[in-house]
Amino acid sequence: MPFQRITILGCGLIGGSFALALKQADFAGEIVGWGREATLERARQRGAIDRGVVDLVQAVADADLVYLSTPVGVILELLSQVGQAAKAGALVTDAGSTKVVICARAGEVLPKNVTFLGGHPLTGKETSGIENADADLFVGAKYVVIKETKEAEEEEEEFGSESVREFLDWLRRVGAEPVVLDAETHDRAGAFTSHLPQLLSTALAAAVADETDRDGLPVSLAAGGFRDMVRLAASPYEIWRDICSTNSENISRALERLERRLARLRARLQSPELAGEFEKAQQVCSLLKANDGRGNDG
Amino acid sequence: MPFQRITILGCGLIGGSFALALKQADFAGEIVGWGREATLERARQRGAIDRGVVDLVQAVADADLVYLSTPVGVILELLSQVGQAAKAGALVTDAGSTKVVICARAGEVLPKNVTFLGGHPLTGKETSGIENADADLFVGAKYVVIKETKEAEEEEEEFGSESVREFLDWLRRVGAEPVVLDAETHDRAGAFTSHLPQLLSTALAAAVADETDRDGLPVSLAAGGFRDMVRLAASPYEIWRDICSTNSENISRALERLERRLARLRARLQSPELAGEFEKAQQVCSLLKANDGRGNDG
Repeated sequence: MPFQRITILGCGLIGGSFALALKQADFAGEIVGWGREATLERARQRGAIDRGVVDLVQAVADADLVYLSTPVGVILELLSQVGQAAKAGALVTDAGSTKVVICARAGEVLPKNVTFLGGHPLTGKETSGIENADADLFVGAKYVVIKETKEAEEEEEEFGSESVREFLDWLRRVGAEPVVLDAETHDRAGAFTSHLPQLLSTALAAAVADETDRDGLPVSLAAGGFRDMVRLAASPYEIWRDICSTNSENISRALERLERRLARLRARLQSPELAGEFEKAQQVCSLLKANDGRGNDG
Repeated sequence: MPFQRITILGCGLIGGSFALALKQADFAGEIVGWGREATLERARQRGAIDRGVVDLVQAVADADLVYLSTPVGVILELLSQVGQAAKAGALVTDAGSTKVVICARAGEVLPKNVTFLGGHPLTGKETSGIENADADLFVGAKYVVIKETKEAEEEEEEFGSESVREFLDWLRRVGAEPVVLDAETHDRAGAFTSHLPQLLSTALAAAVADETDRDGLPVSLAAGGFRDMVRLAASPYEIWRDICSTNSENISRALERLERRLARLRARLQSPELAGEFEKAQQVCSLLKANDGRGNDG
């Protein structure tokens, strides 16, 4: 029995884009949005949702799929109410950037007759809001889904639930590539490839802000390289507050590693050993290129 | 008497692009290239130079403008020979990324009848080589030229030399925006907006390389944000070795600042004070946007 109604909780960049992408991929059922009235109205005008519902219980009640795409902190607040309102057999999934805390909470508060699937689309945009939603946001993006077994990296056919398999099908139809991981592995990896880059960008921008004088130097001399490096610094704090607080151990460890690397670079500015740091860094650039190659082949 | 012959020493990304840009801007004189024979042949095939000359003295002898666009270390090695070979009245300029050491060396080794103008195009590309040269590389880019007076930020009309004024005209004709600074100010600013971003990108990529396991995690989960942050890490070491060794004090200071910022972020991962770090960082994003606005008006 395919999804008849999908309810999106939080119609911002991710939720709005997922709704637009579903419609573009010919989802024939109804898409209901929940959130603030003004946001729902804009989401409706953009054609992302068919109907906006301000009451959470009403919004969730008849949904076959409930898609939580608010900031992590709000996901954590909503889960228990969603569990009480969801119908038997519903699939509840989320798009939060950290997974350990969310999956644990879902395990605690959701009733047994509701299936939970933790998820995280790796779309990487520094913008937010329904205004920036994009039906193609998921095209080519990996989409992590969480399986709490030792064999998480096995084939997804192992997912017992039919609704999970249907959701994974929709992910593919909107252009995403599902990747199965356990929550700990996801959060450890995310600390390095997502959370660390964000905090580095924030730190660089803040350091340069401190340095900036009345003439606008040094920012006025910024070229493309600097702009790329501080692009993420424009990301909304509300999103990152929740990510930092729900993955603080992994992030703290990643930051320490980075600080040690920087101190080492500093000690080697005039030494031939600097070459080794560049070589090690270029390994990652090569890996990224190789991954791109594989992506194009698939 | 306008430039009849321009000699490019080092026909890589910058030198090759400058030659292509001059031709595109209808420079009617001859462009001579100096460098390794294979590079010169490729530069000739791309139409960047009219003629390649492997002998430095011959290449420089009749040039009205000598454009040094090798790595900084090679510029420092070449300056004295260029001074001996250049004709009286020639203008010698360079495109090196640090300016204090180069300008000091030029002051020591160039004869009085040769004019030196330190320069630095802020083009920001992680590629190199004549293959990546681009006639439009300078379009919209600031191009720092060095004036060693207390009034460096005054109008460029103060440049006494006619050849300097002609060079500045060519910079504008290839789409660049000349910015007059003293060498110390340039190097201090560059440490924050160019050298620090490079080393951060290198450190991030190296830290993630260290973390990467046989399954390819965490690199395999990299999304757009991470890719932007490690793009610079692919930059050639030979270029950066020289930049780091000729601006080490400023870079060291910038790195220390950054390390302190990161430690502060680390201490605040679960604290509401994290908001202040994001706010400060976003000041720089706003400044960049405002600068773009002004750029578009001009």
